[in-house]
Amino acid sequence: MIPVRTASASYDVEIAPGLLKELGGRVAALLPAGPRMFVVTSPEIWALHGAEFLSGFAVAPTVLTVPPGEQHKRLATVERLAEEMAEAGADRDSVLIAFSGGVLGDMTGFLAAGYMRGIRYIQVPTTALAQIDSAIGGKTGVNLAAGKNLFGAFHHPLAVYADTAVLATLPDAELRAGLQEAVKAGIIRDRALFDYMDELSESVLAGDVAALTHVIAESVRVKAKVVAADEKESGERMLLNLGHTLGHAIEAATKYKALLHGEAVAWGMLAAIGIAERRALVTSDEAQRMGRVIRAYGPLKNFSANVADLVALTAKDKKNRSGSRSFVLPVGIGDATVVRDVSVAELTGAAEAMMELRGEQVLA
Amino acid sequence: MIPVRTASASYDVEIAPGLLKELGGRVAALLPAGPRMFVVTSPEIWALHGAEFLSGFAVAPTVLTVPPGEQHKRLATVERLAEEMAEAGADRDSVLIAFSGGVLGDMTGFLAAGYMRGIRYIQVPTTALAQIDSAIGGKTGVNLAAGKNLFGAFHHPLAVYADTAVLATLPDAELRAGLQEAVKAGIIRDRALFDYMDELSESVLAGDVAALTHVIAESVRVKAKVVAADEKESGERMLLNLGHTLGHAIEAATKYKALLHGEAVAWGMLAAIGIAERRALVTSDEAQRMGRVIRAYGPLKNFSANVADLVALTAKDKKNRSGSRSFVLPVGIGDATVVRDVSVAELTGAAEAMMELRGEQVLA
Repeated sequence: MIPVRTASASYDVEIAPGLLKELGGRVAALLPAGPRMFVVTSPEIWALHGAEFLSGFAVAPTVLTVPPGEQHKRLATVERLAEEMAEAGADRDSVLIAFSGGVLGDMTGFLAAGYMRGIRYIQVPTTALAQIDSAIGGKTGVNLAAGKNLFGAFHHPLAVYADTAVLATLPDAELRAGLQEAVKAGIIRDRALFDYMDELSESVLAGDVAALTHVIAESVRVKAKVVAADEKESGERMLLNLGHTLGHAIEAATKYKALLHGEAVAWGMLAAIGIAERRALVTSDEAQRMGRVIRAYGPLKNFSANVADLVALTAKDKKNRSGSRSFVLPVGIGDATVVRDVSVAELTGAAEAMMELRGEQVLA
Repeated sequence: MIPVRTASASYDVEIAPGLLKELGGRVAALLPAGPRMFVVTSPEIWALHGAEFLSGFAVAPTVLTVPPGEQHKRLATVERLAEEMAEAGADRDSVLIAFSGGVLGDMTGFLAAGYMRGIRYIQVPTTALAQIDSAIGGKTGVNLAAGKNLFGAFHHPLAVYADTAVLATLPDAELRAGLQEAVKAGIIRDRALFDYMDELSESVLAGDVAALTHVIAESVRVKAKVVAADEKESGERMLLNLGHTLGHAIEAATKYKALLHGEAVAWGMLAAIGIAERRALVTSDEAQRMGRVIRAYGPLKNFSANVADLVALTAKDKKNRSGSRSFVLPVGIGDATVVRDVSVAELTGAAEAMMELRGEQVLA
């Protein structure tokens, strides 16, 4: 159990294999008044895990489904779900359960944030990305045409239950992409986690459940600490965006179709490490080692993009304020910093170097 | 200046005739860093008051417009406005200004609550209803097909600037309907305000700006106190819903077309006063006096509805929790209470009595 304690919320993250069959009992203990419950999930996840999910509930929650895919992460879907809830009689005491990956989990959190100006919800993340990152910390939201996650709310769950055994049903590429966020957690705040992921990469990637559970739990511990220090991302929490500035630009340039989120972040981390090395924030050895571990959790898929476009897209980053571009850089392994003085030339150089690595990666 | 101090926010409400021409200067003093500003308004309001609004700004805010009417208070409009902001380069430091009545003000507040998970905004309310009630207290949101204000957020403005001279351009029926919320404020928490509104009803309704300014300021003082005690409506804040349970039912039954919001609330208050009188929470004299003042701020327009439908619609009220129906009742003049034991029979009786008053009102 990992506690998340912020200025506005206090809840626990439970991480263990086999948690799903205990879910009903745990939720009943958490909510003894027995409110109306609604689970938001995808048809695929429900087909695979619905029976196990339901097994511990005395009264089955009402099931609402959304097809998988970033294109459904929009206000129109939130509105449709809210209408279905209202139709079914959901009130202010009702509770939502997000049983899904990060895309649907973010959207379900926002549905909970907005329905009747805020109802309670629980995260039951089913992907590595969601278990490591998106289900924790209270960031919820949907995409606009203008960009990802541009509309949302901070709204923490009541609890997070991550069943690491569920990850066995993930496509390998999704597991690997999700684990890039764990590599990121190690780089910015936890050298021991980074070392573990380096040394045990084979076990982790083979799906050894004990190794996976350890990596996920330690990553969540990093995230919980960062979020506790800076709930609303005015400082420390920005560190979680290592690799995300260029990562988001790559996702936008490839219309979110070429790469998984974690893969785009991995490319972005390689660029950030390059900038950090040229600024002597990391040694050449550290940079090489970080690059090697990121690739071990690859292969990083190739993509096509124009460097000038990528640089221009970073100007639209949500973290920017009044025109100044924020950038997270590693400081050695296990620490990081936010800088605001990365020039267009520096960024262009880093993006070009990253694009060259892209060629190598394809050959590797 | 009336301070609003809650657990999560601290801001001031300025209420005076002629405030609009000082707005630019006041906003510049409040936000010396000079962020990008966006004003959300209706074409009608902008045509009437846009020049005066802009007169004090060194840099004109970007203007976004929404046609008037409850039918536009939907997530689709919020999304369209958010896309326009993103397109224009709005970032986390940007500031929204709601220059409008309550419908658009609620929606602009929600746009601010959700854009990049929350940016700052200022309320510049242009109707009596918005100046007295909706611009203060941080409730923002939009309608669903299933009901009004069912999706939203608590998000307080940075400041509220209410120019009471602007009310001179309001249609008389809108002024009168808005003032019903001031009558409500008097009934639930401020006998002196109620007495003032009784004794000076002619001046107030004639648009005497000093009298209007006094009534609005005292109403805001009531709201600020109630919201300070209970920001998220777990108790005391429910008192602000006097007349709203049946009022919302009447609005829903007439598809929001027959009556203005304040008129529906006035009918709902008459029913609530009836229940309170039968429960001996108010004397017969007090009930008659409250009824007389409510009608003085009428005439209350007639409407068609079926009592059984109205009673059924109250079961959908947002304030209900796990099936129990909440109802606000006056206790004398200047106090009120929330009860949860209003039976269907009692409510039916009160709704029937209200429907009879409706006939009288038409004759009056």
